Amino acid sequence: MSVRVAVAGASGYAGGEVLRLLAGHPEVEIGALTGNSNAGQRIGALQPHLVPLADRVLEVTTAEVLGGHDVVFLALPHGESAAVAEQLGPDVLVIDMGADFRLTDPADWERFYGSPHAGTWPYGLPELPGARVALEGSKRIAVPGCYPTAVTLALFPAYAAGLIEPEAVIVAASGTSGAGKTPKPHLLGSEVMGSASPYGVGGGHRHTPEMSQNLGAVAGEPVSVSFTPTLVPMSRGILATCSARAKDGVDAAAVRAAYEKAFADEPFVRLLPEGQWPATASVHGSNAAHLQVAYDESARRVIVISVIDNLTKGTAGGAIQSMNIALGLPETTGLSTVGIAP
Amino acid sequence: MSVRVAVAGASGYAGGEVLRLLAGHPEVEIGALTGNSNAGQRIGALQPHLVPLADRVLEVTTAEVLGGHDVVFLALPHGESAAVAEQLGPDVLVIDMGADFRLTDPADWERFYGSPHAGTWPYGLPELPGARVALEGSKRIAVPGCYPTAVTLALFPAYAAGLIEPEAVIVAASGTSGAGKTPKPHLLGSEVMGSASPYGVGGGHRHTPEMSQNLGAVAGEPVSVSFTPTLVPMSRGILATCSARAKDGVDAAAVRAAYEKAFADEPFVRLLPEGQWPATASVHGSNAAHLQVAYDESARRVIVISVIDNLTKGTAGGAIQSMNIALGLPETTGLSTVGIAP
Amino acid sequence: MSVRVAVAGASGYAGGEVLRLLAGHPEVEIGALTGNSNAGQRIGALQPHLVPLADRVLEVTTAEVLGGHDVVFLALPHGESAAVAEQLGPDVLVIDMGADFRLTDPADWERFYGSPHAGTWPYGLPELPGARVALEGSKRIAVPGCYPTAVTLALFPAYAAGLIEPEAVIVAASGTSGAGKTPKPHLLGSEVMGSASPYGVGGGHRHTPEMSQNLGAVAGEPVSVSFTPTLVPMSRGILATCSARAKDGVDAAAVRAAYEKAFADEPFVRLLPEGQWPATASVHGSNAAHLQVAYDESARRVIVISVIDNLTKGTAGGAIQSMNIALGLPETTGLSTVGIAP
Amino acid sequence: MSVRVAVAGASGYAGGEVLRLLAGHPEVEIGALTGNSNAGQRIGALQPHLVPLADRVLEVTTAEVLGGHDVVFLALPHGESAAVAEQLGPDVLVIDMGADFRLTDPADWERFYGSPHAGTWPYGLPELPGARVALEGSKRIAVPGCYPTAVTLALFPAYAAGLIEPEAVIVAASGTSGAGKTPKPHLLGSEVMGSASPYGVGGGHRHTPEMSQNLGAVAGEPVSVSFTPTLVPMSRGILATCSARAKDGVDAAAVRAAYEKAFADEPFVRLLPEGQWPATASVHGSNAAHLQVAYDESARRVIVISVIDNLTKGTAGGAIQSMNIALGLPETTGLSTVGIAP
Repeated sequence: MSVRVAVAGASGYAGGEVLRLLAGHPEVEIGALTGNSNAGQRIGALQPHLVPLADRVLEVTTAEVLGGHDVVFLALPHGESAAVAEQLGPDVLVIDMGADFRLTDPADWERFYGSPHAGTWPYGLPELPGARVALEGSKRIAVPGCYPTAVTLALFPAYAAGLIEPEAVIVAASGTSGAGKTPKPHLLGSEVMGSASPYGVGGGHRHTPEMSQNLGAVAGEPVSVSFTPTLVPMSRGILATCSARAKDGVDAAAVRAAYEKAFADEPFVRLLPEGQWPATASVHGSNAAHLQVAYDESARRVIVISVIDNLTKGTAGGAIQSMNIALGLPETTGLSTVGIAP
Repeated sequence: MSVRVAVAGASGYAGGEVLRLLAGHPEVEIGALTGNSNAGQRIGALQPHLVPLADRVLEVTTAEVLGGHDVVFLALPHGESAAVAEQLGPDVLVIDMGADFRLTDPADWERFYGSPHAGTWPYGLPELPGARVALEGSKRIAVPGCYPTAVTLALFPAYAAGLIEPEAVIVAASGTSGAGKTPKPHLLGSEVMGSASPYGVGGGHRHTPEMSQNLGAVAGEPVSVSFTPTLVPMSRGILATCSARAKDGVDAAAVRAAYEKAFADEPFVRLLPEGQWPATASVHGSNAAHLQVAYDESARRVIVISVIDNLTKGTAGGAIQSMNIALGLPETTGLSTVGIAP
Repeated sequence: MSVRVAVAGASGYAGGEVLRLLAGHPEVEIGALTGNSNAGQRIGALQPHLVPLADRVLEVTTAEVLGGHDVVFLALPHGESAAVAEQLGPDVLVIDMGADFRLTDPADWERFYGSPHAGTWPYGLPELPGARVALEGSKRIAVPGCYPTAVTLALFPAYAAGLIEPEAVIVAASGTSGAGKTPKPHLLGSEVMGSASPYGVGGGHRHTPEMSQNLGAVAGEPVSVSFTPTLVPMSRGILATCSARAKDGVDAAAVRAAYEKAFADEPFVRLLPEGQWPATASVHGSNAAHLQVAYDESARRVIVISVIDNLTKGTAGGAIQSMNIALGLPETTGLSTVGIAP
Repeated sequence: MSVRVAVAGASGYAGGEVLRLLAGHPEVEIGALTGNSNAGQRIGALQPHLVPLADRVLEVTTAEVLGGHDVVFLALPHGESAAVAEQLGPDVLVIDMGADFRLTDPADWERFYGSPHAGTWPYGLPELPGARVALEGSKRIAVPGCYPTAVTLALFPAYAAGLIEPEAVIVAASGTSGAGKTPKPHLLGSEVMGSASPYGVGGGHRHTPEMSQNLGAVAGEPVSVSFTPTLVPMSRGILATCSARAKDGVDAAAVRAAYEKAFADEPFVRLLPEGQWPATASVHGSNAAHLQVAYDESARRVIVISVIDNLTKGTAGGAIQSMNIALGLPETTGLSTVGIAP
């Protein structure tokens, strides 16, 4: 099979990562690459690590340029995908790496993004119960946010097994690439190195309703999420520390069993052996998620740690995993569980 | 006044930091410096940043060498302070930067350290209600652990004001200097850079009972603490994200008011203006703690973020602040709230 | 004495560093602080590490605001100092941390900066032969560039002693704060962490003529400088690796003797013991320079390594050191050789 | 083809990297993995990023264990390869990633390593003139050191074209993984982060004679090398700044032409477009080398910058590239020029 693929927003971090993975995907041919402010520039000047694509030139993001491909990845600012997507025909597989089509409740969208809701597409987290069926053959896919990917993988098995109360507390440490490539003072290397800091504290982060949506669907009841994201001095990686009060009668063995069962057949999720804790370096550049679980008997809480590469499993790798499913390819095609370490 | 000071364990990170601060303290004279495996070596070879002390030579840690000083700082491995301290006379101010004398409940000590409990000394966190009175004139001081310092400052005002439930959830990111200077594979720069990872998850960290002890004393009831420490790629700094369920009727204004009141007169604790979040870089090398509070209405939790430099306010700076109080010096002598940034 | 000091450009990295040091200087009182795009903002929002100045508000940079102080520090973009300085009276000590008044040859200025040359002021590198005399009582001081500070300290003793040929080869690694606080894509943390890269290769860096000027004056003949600056993943610090071919008859002992003699009485320059190599961490936040020398018999080159903190000894600390001399204060007032490590 | 491969020293950084690449190599099957102090442990505990190999167990390094494979990679401490290699039959392709068989002159070996010289094997830098012919069909390969790889690629074209004098000056910045995985105090993350420092200054680094050997062979005359390696705060990557005096009549166009010609057909070496400077992040995890050249007219020096990933092109990737040639496989099999950035 040779699938012809276009990428809109190819100069940013998400666009660059999807290109990095597509360059090694045996079933695709890379077609048009677009940007707006960078149109006319060579990829080699913008993404110097993508050597095989160095002489490709960015075009302007239009439906004409993107049309005529089998698959179009949209790596656009939140709120810009809908306008592009509706001009692409129903036969094109459109994979949105932005937030536009993730939320099911229009009220959530409007509260966090302040604009009309564009709709809801099949959700590209294949590990979530029922997700693969919705993705097979779909022509529209909403790729999850990076934090919701890490957090949903960490907590859905406990909710599916009825082990924890519906009040989750999550603190996540993220590398700075999650904040994008647009220069801002607080993202300067001088500010970031040697510093850890939170942002969007107190329920303000836009990924919060997406987590509640995913976990609530599995739990069968509303799940409140207290979510605090923090920036730490690394380019890539998310470490999510997730916990909730254990329900009565839960013990450590029940927790471990639930997670072993949930991920036994998952190609990209690895529950580490007992006693080994995840580190983001182990999944650098890979599509793997590493997890570990604990039961704190004294505090009566179940604690789950997950790590992913925010740009790979958290964005572009997850997008390609979902593309593979939609196209009927083996799910792991062009993706790896091997990280680049140290 | 000229106070003659000795430091035991001068080759490690805590010892080096106390020397850095003592070198700028106008009322002290630095006397004996000791180490064990490094005895006979020059400070310049071990702590090359301490230029004025470069030609000092480390002696062996014995009561003879340490005796005859007005103040002795102990920066020794946990469990080694008691033997040294009991040989130092009752007129010497002994300040232990290890864990030996922090806990009040012998059962806590034995559970986490596995040896007999040595006793309990006045606790060197002056901001804690009642602490200053206990420190004034004291000849023995137990310096708090770095995590308990960050966490206690973050949460005691909420407990003192009766705003939150006695189940605290804490996730803290720490720089690697908190793990000490003894070489271990997982602390290599190659492993640490680009990686975030947890450790001691599920109640296993030795600082957990110290947090419960501090917060419970203020709350007037037992406080359970779910504590997850993580290592992030920086040398110094702790970012503690602390939360608990709000009691009924609590709102954002009540939370802010409690913190403004608690820290109005504190020279080293700064509650940031609303909307500004703490960053560890801002307290790098300083004795300041920066805090911010939030009330998450949706999750009904009070969230408090604190940052400190683990070696300064979290260890050596806190030690000197307590020494100043014990000696009757102005509390801020030789200490600064100015961080080294960027 | 209480010297009243103003700082123009107080929101940037050089301005922040001079304020950090002034806040601990016992003889100064901090007066007006100015910025342009940031005028009206609180220092606490822009420089959160400067706690004691947090509630100060930036004013617009004008001669009216800056006038009426004993000392004015200019931390302005290159080319903007001259216009401000000429409006400040001859009784005000004006210390320019920009490049405007460093070069003696107008042709050098015009070639590298493309504008008319504003003049030449006494040069604020006290360790350079003859510099202190020119600074005493001066009302105008040009603070050296950060790279020229590191490189001149490294090589002038060898030129003064006639040990090396007049063709110096220099490669310097710098932390990113040297590139300033204006957000640019290549300075983002995501780009900087995990990456080392050169810039201004082949003679294009504006600090090159300043190095040639300093070294040529000491050598008594023109010195050509091949200078390659590189950015490495740290916020602060310069490591300069400097070498030149040894003249005939030179040996290792002669090299070491020249450096011991040159810096025997310098309060801020430390020639490390043989066998110990400098590290930028040792001078983090301090006004010290650490040096080491080697003679490579096989390649017949003298190699000198120097490290400084680019913002302290390389900019703001050097500026205050020169201010102290100009005002007749002890040269080390308010400055320290103690670094913040690890 | 299915080539059966063993790796001795599989718990270290070089061994881990060769396994990372072999795991994605379509023509190999991974056989025995050995270590000594780690024998009996699972790869998952030692190299958690190598998920597909997690349950493999390390065996002791013996000829019995390693025998019976088509290819054996030796990632052993310097001086230990010879004893193992001589027990492996002449039909086994032995690829030594240590230093034992790199040098041609026994005197060089003895001076820098202090033990008898074991011999000289075909040198695994395929880009060097004549190297591919020597590698084809060879059963023994000496993989170059990481610094010599970066430096030789940077300078051999200028020597081959007779453009520069035989006195090269090289300063290289390296990530810490080049120093290996054995814990040492100066390699701790706390020491490394925020710090740049040199080592082996003045001709003492063991990679110096290897550079002279490579460049002298191309130049047709002895080339002296002044080499200063430095450690900078990143895990991977080498940035080599290499220069030499230009011969009379050389100009910028001649320099560029020589490099364009030298690398026109090289699959892994990329001469960047004029005006673009290399960054180590662009080659992170890839087998590419990026180069840029400059001619400094004022200093009359040719300056060449090269970047590689020290573990990939500098060690394990170069080893596999050479293996491919020796086995008659396409040279790029299992290797990529795409880096992992940001």
